[in-house]
Amino acid sequence: MRRSDSPGRRCLQISSGGLKPQMSDSLRVGLIGLGTVGSGVAQILTEHAQRTAQRAGRPIEITGIAVRDASKPRPVDLAGIPVSTDPLSLAKSPDNDVIVELIGGLSPAKEIVETALEAGKDIVTANKALLCEHGNTLFSKARESGRTIAFEAAVAGGCPVIAAIGQAMSGNQIVALEAILNGTSNFILTQMLENSVSYEDAVAEAQAMGYAEADPSMDVEGTDAAQKLGILTQLAFGERLTPDMFPVQGIDELLLEDLRFADELGYAIKLLATAKLVDGCLELHTQPTLIRHSRPLAQTNGPYNMIELTGDAVGKAWFSAMGAGQMATASAVVADLVDVAVGRAALTFRRLNLWQTEQQFQYQNLEEIKRRYYFRFHVEDLPHVIADIADILGRNRISLSSVIQKEVSDEQDPSKPPIVPLVFMTHLTTEGKVRAAAKELNQVSSVRPPWLCLPVSDPQPASGE
Amino acid sequence: MRRSDSPGRRCLQISSGGLKPQMSDSLRVGLIGLGTVGSGVAQILTEHAQRTAQRAGRPIEITGIAVRDASKPRPVDLAGIPVSTDPLSLAKSPDNDVIVELIGGLSPAKEIVETALEAGKDIVTANKALLCEHGNTLFSKARESGRTIAFEAAVAGGCPVIAAIGQAMSGNQIVALEAILNGTSNFILTQMLENSVSYEDAVAEAQAMGYAEADPSMDVEGTDAAQKLGILTQLAFGERLTPDMFPVQGIDELLLEDLRFADELGYAIKLLATAKLVDGCLELHTQPTLIRHSRPLAQTNGPYNMIELTGDAVGKAWFSAMGAGQMATASAVVADLVDVAVGRAALTFRRLNLWQTEQQFQYQNLEEIKRRYYFRFHVEDLPHVIADIADILGRNRISLSSVIQKEVSDEQDPSKPPIVPLVFMTHLTTEGKVRAAAKELNQVSSVRPPWLCLPVSDPQPASGE
Repeated sequence: MRRSDSPGRRCLQISSGGLKPQMSDSLRVGLIGLGTVGSGVAQILTEHAQRTAQRAGRPIEITGIAVRDASKPRPVDLAGIPVSTDPLSLAKSPDNDVIVELIGGLSPAKEIVETALEAGKDIVTANKALLCEHGNTLFSKARESGRTIAFEAAVAGGCPVIAAIGQAMSGNQIVALEAILNGTSNFILTQMLENSVSYEDAVAEAQAMGYAEADPSMDVEGTDAAQKLGILTQLAFGERLTPDMFPVQGIDELLLEDLRFADELGYAIKLLATAKLVDGCLELHTQPTLIRHSRPLAQTNGPYNMIELTGDAVGKAWFSAMGAGQMATASAVVADLVDVAVGRAALTFRRLNLWQTEQQFQYQNLEEIKRRYYFRFHVEDLPHVIADIADILGRNRISLSSVIQKEVSDEQDPSKPPIVPLVFMTHLTTEGKVRAAAKELNQVSSVRPPWLCLPVSDPQPASGE
Repeated sequence: MRRSDSPGRRCLQISSGGLKPQMSDSLRVGLIGLGTVGSGVAQILTEHAQRTAQRAGRPIEITGIAVRDASKPRPVDLAGIPVSTDPLSLAKSPDNDVIVELIGGLSPAKEIVETALEAGKDIVTANKALLCEHGNTLFSKARESGRTIAFEAAVAGGCPVIAAIGQAMSGNQIVALEAILNGTSNFILTQMLENSVSYEDAVAEAQAMGYAEADPSMDVEGTDAAQKLGILTQLAFGERLTPDMFPVQGIDELLLEDLRFADELGYAIKLLATAKLVDGCLELHTQPTLIRHSRPLAQTNGPYNMIELTGDAVGKAWFSAMGAGQMATASAVVADLVDVAVGRAALTFRRLNLWQTEQQFQYQNLEEIKRRYYFRFHVEDLPHVIADIADILGRNRISLSSVIQKEVSDEQDPSKPPIVPLVFMTHLTTEGKVRAAAKELNQVSSVRPPWLCLPVSDPQPASGE
């Protein structure tokens, strides 16, 4: 087994494999993927080679790169570094010590990582989907091989949240984690409210500015944020939960009017990823959520991420930075490489012992998740509509903290029956009651589908409600 | 030399001292100081011993405590742990591996730390004054002894800023650091504005709530924040600057009206610690500063700390948490102990190589610091006063972005000449010009001393100015 070691120190390790002298010079990197993030990593490592070497205690150099399309022009000078289209060969190659996996997705990323681990390499990855889905398998394999997987870049790029939870909070039990983990959707929501534009226009703006892909579904449907929450939940609570195991709701059904109603009531709406202990049970969800204006999460705008952690000793702590983008993510990858070079990453990996199988916490029953809710309907402006809806909510034992009904907008076609928005804010109730009420609400003829129901993060009504 | 090591691994080290087998079980802690923070540390280590051991890979246990007054009742159960009043003996004792120094101040803390290092112990400390003043000496000594000093608790307790700068940002050059590092003064400023109370009343409230000491001068005069800035500057820029080398101004001359004027102009006033590169020169200051409302620093209220880092790759990143208080600081001490137990702290200490002597950056000449400024005068309500002051500023080539003059307050004694507040906001100018103007302003008879001059953090006027 080979281990990273700092220069000038020889460390003889007595392990099951017998004595093996270690003398490493540079940390040699096999870079898999040279897209946005890969180019950023290459840029930092080449433009700031000396600085990086000084921090790592040894040079960190890219000795091979694997890409999908070798003919594509690359925005970084790769003078002398061999480029191939064969990632598995690079993973097996004796010419590197660590594989940086930046291609994303499940396959062939999983095969590449497994091959590299078997070949005695450490891994640095930004691949949230891979970790969320196969973290258990891959971390087991890494442990068997005596190797390390570092993944700071997989969640909230510029925020060192993996280090924060895994190391800085080691004197605490994390009791709650609420976070904006997807910069694309946060940018879209900010655009909508600040510029008074529709969801569709805001998506187009996000794409024009490079904050959203041509197909933005992973971001706007909440999948990306939910995968990241899965990883953070493993880190903070030691539990493996995948997005199919908890409520995941995207921002793609929000209207500008929802952001305005919430604003009027004293709230921002953010795509909030939540993992918290409620009476000892672990509760997870990733949904657009109303958050009181005064909270730092509500004040986080644009393509930024923000994580609010609550530890049982330190109380609340906040971390915020660009969550995506070339250099923010590349910065996290390079920090991981420095950790690998210094030898810290191996120690942390061993200690964190992630994705082991024993369950420590009970999971909150979905129906028993207790929150307040925001309902927004479009109803025909007829007598009795409020009464019909309030009746359904009341019979399901959901009590209301406020109701907003606006007048018919002048822009509506006067030849058609007028449609008005109708907003209800509830007191604390359960997801089960809300789902039961939803079935009945879908039967109310004067309610025009689709209607919207969002959780509210704060358990008490604001003074303006 | 003894080294911390994780259980089950034996590591033979070939060093100048010859072969030494290492097998450590628990990490044994000598705790020096059992005040607020020391009790918090003891509480976490005793109440959560199993959790801590699981994270550290080995038990962490307090094997000895040194206090000033052994008869004082302690709020934590110390069953069986020997308590003495002899810290130097504890530092030398063979019964512990690491000394946690929590008594603060320069002496005898320095002697205790040196003794412990010579005895082959690692150090965990929260002592900002000691590090700021003697970090160079102590870190040299630690390096000579092959030992480690960990100090996350010394700056912004609950915010893992030492780890953030020293590790998470290793792919970046930090180009700017602006921070609220003193929770006491931040609490006072928040109290003043939110509750419309005087500085004195806000200090009394802070003392009543335990956020300020009986003698709060270190906090309100800016000394504490400046010392912490010195430490962060060493970490982020590799330069050793002590508070006598840069402008340090406290909050003790602020009036409620200053906070209100600033608020009216679109700013909050915060005691801001700044270290940044301006055209390659390092510029430091710790002063109450006007900060645009939209910035996260301006939105950080109460006893919290907030650090805004700017890295050349990641851009801006923010970290916020309780900066002081028993459990926030204890949480950081325990995190450091876990790092020592795991073996990470030693690696980081070696790599960071702090407080070495080579200067890397030029220091900005004090007179050439370029900022905007806020001036607030109390002037006799006479003709020509504004002209007199504006003339002085103009002749010193300081141009103005706005002026506020309020009417005479009804509360004033009508039998005396009326005094009105007068506020000037300048465009970008230099500290040198401001100091030159100050000399002349002190001669203007219609200006009642003291008058106030504060820097403005943002280089462009806000839209409301």
